[in-house]
Amino acid sequence: MFVLRKNPKSKIQNPKLIDVLTQLPTINALKQPTSSAWVKQAMPAAGYAYANLDIILLDHSHCERKAAGVALNMMFRYPSNTKMVRELTAIAREELEHFELVNQWLERRNIPLAPLPPPPYGAGLKAVVRPKEPERFLDSLLVTGLIEARSHERLGLLAAHCPEPELAKFYRGLMASEARHYGIYWVLAATYFDKEIVMKRLDELAIIESQLLATLHPEPRIHS
Amino acid sequence: MFVLRKNPKSKIQNPKLIDVLTQLPTINALKQPTSSAWVKQAMPAAGYAYANLDIILLDHSHCERKAAGVALNMMFRYPSNTKMVRELTAIAREELEHFELVNQWLERRNIPLAPLPPPPYGAGLKAVVRPKEPERFLDSLLVTGLIEARSHERLGLLAAHCPEPELAKFYRGLMASEARHYGIYWVLAATYFDKEIVMKRLDELAIIESQLLATLHPEPRIHS
Ligand SMILES: [Fe+2]
Ligand SMILES: [Fe+2]
Ligand SMILES: [Fe+2]
Ligand SMILES: [Fe+2]
Repeated sequence: MFVLRKNPKSKIQNPKLIDVLTQLPTINALKQPTSSAWVKQAMPAAGYAYANLDIILLDHSHCERKAAGVALNMMFRYPSNTKMVRELTAIAREELEHFELVNQWLERRNIPLAPLPPPPYGAGLKAVVRPKEPERFLDSLLVTGLIEARSHERLGLLAAHCPEPELAKFYRGLMASEARHYGIYWVLAATYFDKEIVMKRLDELAIIESQLLATLHPEPRIHS
Repeated sequence: MFVLRKNPKSKIQNPKLIDVLTQLPTINALKQPTSSAWVKQAMPAAGYAYANLDIILLDHSHCERKAAGVALNMMFRYPSNTKMVRELTAIAREELEHFELVNQWLERRNIPLAPLPPPPYGAGLKAVVRPKEPERFLDSLLVTGLIEARSHERLGLLAAHCPEPELAKFYRGLMASEARHYGIYWVLAATYFDKEIVMKRLDELAIIESQLLATLHPEPRIHS
């Protein structure tokens, strides 16, 4: 269910690829698919010489480091939740590996590591995490899961539309991990909370997540 | 230069081992070697049935997670320092691997993951990090390096004195990484700062580090 199939202008590197992508299990949690405007923003525009794709790569580096940080922070906050600690240790290790891989891409393209103002997406989601326990724990798991689900979708779109075969292949390699991460956060929520409560709250948060992306952020970002 | 060689009561598991340990390059940074009182506190005491060794393992788990957290936090604070980011990504990944391995030991011994009040060591070192940049960056690198150096020394002592061959082997495996981590933090300090300034500040911080351990903390900890 990628809206972008309908966009006749999108440069699909390999026509077979988009079919593979659309056959991937859709993460139903997401309420709205990404708009074609986001892909247009991310892809190299005429006369812009890959600049936006480079910014997306730099932002992606920050995203991977943040993903590792979020997993680690959850372990600091809930050190006794053995199952969670085991799963999040594996996720944090993987995110750091992704971080390293993205940074190698930056180096190859001579893009120096640099701070980059984040889009309002992350802060917007953080703001709806309820402050009291155990709600805070549930919301943290679900919000992090939704971010993973959205990353999965967007890396898939980058894989399908990126005009550089090598880079497209790289995105394709990462997107599967992000879908798996979404699944782990979901399973953890269902481990520590009643399934009905999880479903209800996920639904509420997913609506907010899609609303946060309804207006395209003016700067190209993974979650713009 | 392990003081413990002089302690006739210490149970040396394998007499050859202590020779190997003493032949390892000593990390000169440490001003004072660990006292034999610390080893006595960590090792199973008559009638205590391994309890202290178990507490040390649980504390060790927290230490490895914290070590990963410190490396990650430095990357958040100084995202443009490419060499540092590359080195600390590798360290953070390794610390998470150590965390996982220690947690497997806890599981094998039926020790549940649980919070554990830390000894004053970490907070004591954090307190002497100067708040203004670039001093904060230098001090953070050196303090973290000193903690790694001390961990190396203490894991070496656990390896030499632990009465369980398997666990002793495990400690022996980790101690080399911690010495390498010390070296990396030192090299990073010398990359971003004048070597003379680094040496002078390391000397000052090392004195404080040893002073913080001069009085044994009443609870068994890696850094008690
Ligand atoms: Fe990732
Ligand atoms: Fe992820
Ligand atoms: Fe470690
Ligand atoms: Fe270390």
